[in-house]
Amino acid sequence: MHKLAVGVFLACATASAAMAGEGMWTPDNLPLAQLKSKYGFTPTAAWTAHAQRAALRLAGGCSGSFVSPNGLVLTNHHCVNSCVQQLSDADKDFIKSGFLAKEEKDEIKCPEIELNRLDAITDVTARVKGATAGKSGEAFGKADRAIKSEIEKECVAGNSASKRCDVVDLYHGGIYALYEYHRYQDVRLVFAPEFEMAFFGGDPDNFNFPRYDLDMGMLRAWEDGKPARVADFFPFSTDGAAEGEMVVTIGNPGGTDRQLTVAELESARDHDLIPRLLLLAEQRGMIEQFRSESPEHWRIGQHDLFSVENAFKALRGRLLALQDPAVFALKRAQEAELRTFVDADPARKAKYGGAWDAIANAMDAYRTVEARYKYIEARRGFFSEYYGHARTLVRGTVERGKPNAERLREFTDSRLPSVTQRLFSSAPVYPDYEQVTLGWSLRKLREALGTDDAFVRQVLGTDAPEALARRLVAGTRLGDPAVRRALWDGGAEAVAKSDDPFIVLARAVDPAARAIRSRYEDEVEAIVDQNSQLVAAARFEKYGTSTYPDATFTQRFSFGEVRGWDEKGTFVPPFTDIAGTFAHATGAYPFALPATWLAAKERLDLRTRMNLATTNDIIGGNSGSPLVNARGEIVGLVFDGNIHSLGGNYWYDERLNRTVAVHSSAILEALRKVYGADRLVRELESARR
Amino acid sequence: MHKLAVGVFLACATASAAMAGEGMWTPDNLPLAQLKSKYGFTPTAAWTAHAQRAALRLAGGCSGSFVSPNGLVLTNHHCVNSCVQQLSDADKDFIKSGFLAKEEKDEIKCPEIELNRLDAITDVTARVKGATAGKSGEAFGKADRAIKSEIEKECVAGNSASKRCDVVDLYHGGIYALYEYHRYQDVRLVFAPEFEMAFFGGDPDNFNFPRYDLDMGMLRAWEDGKPARVADFFPFSTDGAAEGEMVVTIGNPGGTDRQLTVAELESARDHDLIPRLLLLAEQRGMIEQFRSESPEHWRIGQHDLFSVENAFKALRGRLLALQDPAVFALKRAQEAELRTFVDADPARKAKYGGAWDAIANAMDAYRTVEARYKYIEARRGFFSEYYGHARTLVRGTVERGKPNAERLREFTDSRLPSVTQRLFSSAPVYPDYEQVTLGWSLRKLREALGTDDAFVRQVLGTDAPEALARRLVAGTRLGDPAVRRALWDGGAEAVAKSDDPFIVLARAVDPAARAIRSRYEDEVEAIVDQNSQLVAAARFEKYGTSTYPDATFTQRFSFGEVRGWDEKGTFVPPFTDIAGTFAHATGAYPFALPATWLAAKERLDLRTRMNLATTNDIIGGNSGSPLVNARGEIVGLVFDGNIHSLGGNYWYDERLNRTVAVHSSAILEALRKVYGADRLVRELESARR
Repeated sequence: MHKLAVGVFLACATASAAMAGEGMWTPDNLPLAQLKSKYGFTPTAAWTAHAQRAALRLAGGCSGSFVSPNGLVLTNHHCVNSCVQQLSDADKDFIKSGFLAKEEKDEIKCPEIELNRLDAITDVTARVKGATAGKSGEAFGKADRAIKSEIEKECVAGNSASKRCDVVDLYHGGIYALYEYHRYQDVRLVFAPEFEMAFFGGDPDNFNFPRYDLDMGMLRAWEDGKPARVADFFPFSTDGAAEGEMVVTIGNPGGTDRQLTVAELESARDHDLIPRLLLLAEQRGMIEQFRSESPEHWRIGQHDLFSVENAFKALRGRLLALQDPAVFALKRAQEAELRTFVDADPARKAKYGGAWDAIANAMDAYRTVEARYKYIEARRGFFSEYYGHARTLVRGTVERGKPNAERLREFTDSRLPSVTQRLFSSAPVYPDYEQVTLGWSLRKLREALGTDDAFVRQVLGTDAPEALARRLVAGTRLGDPAVRRALWDGGAEAVAKSDDPFIVLARAVDPAARAIRSRYEDEVEAIVDQNSQLVAAARFEKYGTSTYPDATFTQRFSFGEVRGWDEKGTFVPPFTDIAGTFAHATGAYPFALPATWLAAKERLDLRTRMNLATTNDIIGGNSGSPLVNARGEIVGLVFDGNIHSLGGNYWYDERLNRTVAVHSSAILEALRKVYGADRLVRELESARR
Repeated sequence: MHKLAVGVFLACATASAAMAGEGMWTPDNLPLAQLKSKYGFTPTAAWTAHAQRAALRLAGGCSGSFVSPNGLVLTNHHCVNSCVQQLSDADKDFIKSGFLAKEEKDEIKCPEIELNRLDAITDVTARVKGATAGKSGEAFGKADRAIKSEIEKECVAGNSASKRCDVVDLYHGGIYALYEYHRYQDVRLVFAPEFEMAFFGGDPDNFNFPRYDLDMGMLRAWEDGKPARVADFFPFSTDGAAEGEMVVTIGNPGGTDRQLTVAELESARDHDLIPRLLLLAEQRGMIEQFRSESPEHWRIGQHDLFSVENAFKALRGRLLALQDPAVFALKRAQEAELRTFVDADPARKAKYGGAWDAIANAMDAYRTVEARYKYIEARRGFFSEYYGHARTLVRGTVERGKPNAERLREFTDSRLPSVTQRLFSSAPVYPDYEQVTLGWSLRKLREALGTDDAFVRQVLGTDAPEALARRLVAGTRLGDPAVRRALWDGGAEAVAKSDDPFIVLARAVDPAARAIRSRYEDEVEAIVDQNSQLVAAARFEKYGTSTYPDATFTQRFSFGEVRGWDEKGTFVPPFTDIAGTFAHATGAYPFALPATWLAAKERLDLRTRMNLATTNDIIGGNSGSPLVNARGEIVGLVFDGNIHSLGGNYWYDERLNRTVAVHSSAILEALRKVYGADRLVRELESARR
């Protein structure tokens, strides 16, 4: 792995801001000098390797960690929420009641959760760049995808059930690295509190602090029908961290846009965020009203509403950041500095000078394919589980028959286990809800592409969107996992013969979807990738290789400290306590405490710390990350950032950007005194020794 | 009235664009020289005075015209839609079935429609500016409101039942004019086609062309229990207008922002349009789902959904215009030119130079009061008919007791008849729907101002928003017009004693609402008004008084011609025909034709022109405007603009901006052969003689 010296290039343009918490560092490139000077902390190779393997990725989009040698996993409630909902039905609603496996045998398998433990990182830059050298456009994209699939296949070596390999693009093409994971697909639900407690304050308090939430969930990795034995795990700290103490997050930030060009940021602001937000807002109104119709609709819509509201608030924060003239001024200044450096030398100018305009042109090209790409290929027009399964069957059975390197990336050997886990999942599909969401998204498809668009006419025929949705949902058998499995096993031939209405629809859509995907990949993605490599190389030339890459949903370490902040003249202290939880309870959703907490009030030590704020640099995907001290003990569980952290997609503002975590003491106090989870408390305590 | 010479100042910065259709001209300042040179048309004073009085304003936000001497009024279906819905119930749904008064006695009074005929315009600039001279901030605003109320009261002279007087601010404070109207409040529904036919193509086709709609409605003004006799009306043309023929719209464009400063446009783009769009999108999703729940919910939500979707699409178009770098470049260039002129002369600079920065500062101040102003005073947080009535009662009964000049502007003597028309309206209020919309908007209030906000806590107490909405709706008696009338007649004392839960809420909200309104008026509105006067004066100095003012929902003439346009290389012809209507019918909403049309197909002349496109310069508020030829005959009925017309809020683009109208021949053909409206056809034909 290419080693990067410590330093922060972003500081070049923001010399006045302190940068203590900034940085999402790869495990093989921690900012050692900075850590030593700031915190007097020098992680050994063993410390880092241990932390790397004790931390986990939830493949669906979260983080977590082992907290016992028996594969017990700590993450957020909102990371296990979909599993909790999938295991519930109208009679037993674990979202409402919470879930506790009294005994090991009561732990229930989550239908769609996959855990990834990062075992190794290898630099494959030379091999990837060698395969694409001299190519551009379509040929570049094709070669790029092929070499990555080839490297991944070699790495998995036929062992895809327990091994996962991803080629990761760091620094926007500056470095390509092969990430090898141990894959766990037998993951069981161990504990979840009531949703009311996990998400106390609800959407109104989301991305805010002070907070009073117990946003925790516990899973267990099983292997060969037994709890997995693991060598690396984080024991719980006895008391948590003190104000000002250094704390580390090890998690998987999903993505940041800190190194994008100004043209890409403008495109994001004007053409990406706004349409997405408008769609989310409408979806939110639709789901909220659907939920109000009956207790069962309330239950069914819970997870989607959470996701939609969470995304809405996060993207709204990003848009506000990009509307801040100061943020754009910073970005323009950074870009101007780099371009001045490039233009100053004729050789450099010849090599890199055209990259920015090429990316800007690709953004223009993007606008011409954007709506079709999003609605047809990226499925904005087909918001339906049935359709998702149908497309996996239609595409997957065909793609499986192709050589690995020629397949669509999501169907390569390395990725198939995740595909089939979802396809064969026992999670219920709700016809009522499907009909509503599909009908709605078909209306949006027509709105986005136009009534007279040939594709829209092909899909809708003379049907109204709602009528088509009703007909498809009434006629499908894809809600039955056995039917899906039979079609998958039957392969392309069986799928081609199926008259299931969703299969028929997915077959009809596929040519147009593949066509617009190719256009997007060739005319936008390949151009951006190729020219981003040039920008990254120019940046390395000027600043040295002294920074961290944009987030890529791969493991990153962030070093910060427990600290409050100044909110327009008022200091926000870094800790809340359990007393505050009770003080904020009104009895009305989302500020209602569950009966368990009300009953336990007398037993609880109300001075126990509940949540805390730190300066760690995180973003969506970090949810469930362990917050550990210098000794590698759990002092908290990351579950949110404050409102200022949303601009963190574009830059890190040390003054205001804060991570929000559940305090380790609150977790132990609740497990002991509210939930009577003695088995788990014993397991956590014995892990400490 | 101050007379303005003809010319187009906007052309200064866009010399290359033709400006034929541009301009929303006040009746006292038509562009005579331009009309003569371009169309060889010279309207006489009599022609203009006749057109001025034949055209009408619908006070709720539309336009229309007299089309017979017996007070028959032609406007759009979407302008009478609320009346049609108010006259419907679960058993007789006129939205679905359409409405035709076979005899005069079958015409039914619309509970909330008021017609205004413009009788006179007087320049009152000197008097208004005299009253505010030397004042600024709060004192400026107070003096400004007081003098306007005083002028209006004098004008009405106690005759408010049939007279309405409004002081209108033209050119953003360049000119103040008193508009005297004849007021009609006994307005009866005569004819409305089925909604399916009026809005054929629905939201997908809204703001599009080619179109195939019969978006018409007919009303009649009554006075003293008889149809009103009117001297000025537009007879129908025999054949409509030819391609290229000059056509005139006389209507009431609601508002444009063509003369705003760059700071105001930036504020609109970043801080006004986006929040409004996000709210509309969510409201849309909510109402759509509500409508899907039952046929009765479908009926109840119809009008609001139409309004929301229409506003959404219009504002989305505006946002896209403001995201177009070319539009901002034009605005910046115009502003720079004017400021250079101002700065070139020390006296001018001293007089006007600070205006732009003052407005920019007011925009910053706006951001600090914006959310509270919108949610508390402008009622975004209280989306409820009951609440609207309660606030009118709480405020109106107190305001009535004050001297006219000191009242809130909407409760001055000149305006009270509109207030009571709505307050005493027999239109039904739907408790189910109220509960949904109020609960939703209370959630938005909490979201916008924050959970811990003192006002939010005062309103919600420990209730969830939905629970509060349920309680209020269950307990109120304000759905009964007699109860509202009794409270109004009982005055401030009766209202103060009322324990109706909505009255209690409105009383509780009022102090905060008045406080934030005052802040907005003093710290934003007054500063903007005062400095906009300076910008307007500077503009007059440089360009002469040679342009038209921004739209103000007052009467404007626009002169254009029947013309198609080039849409990305494809010519869009200006006419559609009835055959096209049938060709686009799929049988599925919103492309389903009503049974009446399907049954009439054989009888109809399919070559009859259905809709047409013209270059007239219109905007929202112009809906229902007559489209007349040089002889003052109806050749069409304005009901929409094409998608490019949405940018018309900021500038007029002759190449693309088109008005969309129902062709006069389609109206006559449909009345005769589809609806058997012989009485109306006879009336229209005899009006022609």
